[in-house]
Amino acid sequence: MTHKDKRVNVFLEELASSSATPGGGSAAALAGAMGAGLVGMVCRLTIGRKRFADVEDELRGVLNEAETLRLRLTDLADADTQAFDQVMAAYRLPKETPAQQTARHTAIQSALQGATQVPLETARACGTVIKLAAQVIEKINPNALSDAGAAALLAEAGLKGAQLNVAINLADINDPIFVQKTNEDLHRILSGTDQEKERVFAFVLGHV
Amino acid sequence: MTHKDKRVNVFLEELASSSATPGGGSAAALAGAMGAGLVGMVCRLTIGRKRFADVEDELRGVLNEAETLRLRLTDLADADTQAFDQVMAAYRLPKETPAQQTARHTAIQSALQGATQVPLETARACGTVIKLAAQVIEKINPNALSDAGAAALLAEAGLKGAQLNVAINLADINDPIFVQKTNEDLHRILSGTDQEKERVFAFVLGHV
Repeated sequence: MTHKDKRVNVFLEELASSSATPGGGSAAALAGAMGAGLVGMVCRLTIGRKRFADVEDELRGVLNEAETLRLRLTDLADADTQAFDQVMAAYRLPKETPAQQTARHTAIQSALQGATQVPLETARACGTVIKLAAQVIEKINPNALSDAGAAALLAEAGLKGAQLNVAINLADINDPIFVQKTNEDLHRILSGTDQEKERVFAFVLGHV
Repeated sequence: MTHKDKRVNVFLEELASSSATPGGGSAAALAGAMGAGLVGMVCRLTIGRKRFADVEDELRGVLNEAETLRLRLTDLADADTQAFDQVMAAYRLPKETPAQQTARHTAIQSALQGATQVPLETARACGTVIKLAAQVIEKINPNALSDAGAAALLAEAGLKGAQLNVAINLADINDPIFVQKTNEDLHRILSGTDQEKERVFAFVLGHV
């Protein structure tokens, strides 16, 4: 069963269990999905009200993007579990003959690249959620300010949690070009997000 | 139906909907519950292994505490929705006669105090999750480092998200003693958590 089809408390129990999956990568993606959901909510609480008519078109665009990101991050929670399961399966391959050792090494490296790409995509989506929260924070219905603040905070946790998963899988990858490209992608994604999150947080605290 | 009994994607859809609940307060509590779940997981991945026998007793204690916090934070996600619904119900009370106005004012103030206490409890529980992650980060099975890092990040998002909800409800409360006491409690809870979260995060990045 996919994580998204589980009851919330069943997912939380599985997270807390001694099984390595679901783990921090899936939880990070779901935190990002909650952040995206809250960006959608604050847009919906603003759209259609006369007072905010001049930003309605912009917020409709943000709402569409946030909804796409919510679904994507929900799927990434499952993709993370699958990618990690493949890494563990590769490590369990037989390693008695030289041919087996080569096949196992190739399978591990391939699985690790997959287990790096998934949190990289989670990080990218979470980074966009932070930017959307920052884009709308001064335009939305003030009744929803704390929700937009929570959106940025949750997406930031998802982004940094994904960053840790990228880093931990990258450490065992032997392909220097893949490692360099992934690190460059990651730093591009991270760039400026701390400041945007802090700006959203400070704006909310300054307007309560 | 309680949030914990909903399927994950149903909860996320409700979060994104134009209904004010569930909102950032419930999402913050669930982020904290995921953090607590991950602290439990990293303890379970360490307990029972010879290499970590000397920290086993300590980790069993942390595991028990993390599991209590996970269940508490899951319940707080529902309590937050109920508390906010009561605030909205109080604002909808009739206000035509002076007696009605007085009754409505009292109901609003009482509901706002409840809607402040719930995120304060969420903040307190999330703060403890961060401390538990910081307590175990140097002792756990290194295979679970990124999960412990994600735990601290998610609990931090839950803590700060709860802080925004405390602040926003406190702004409309007229009782200066309640306001002062709540602010003091909140600052005590927040104290040192940023540094502990940063220490956990840096430790994970330094040991991949």
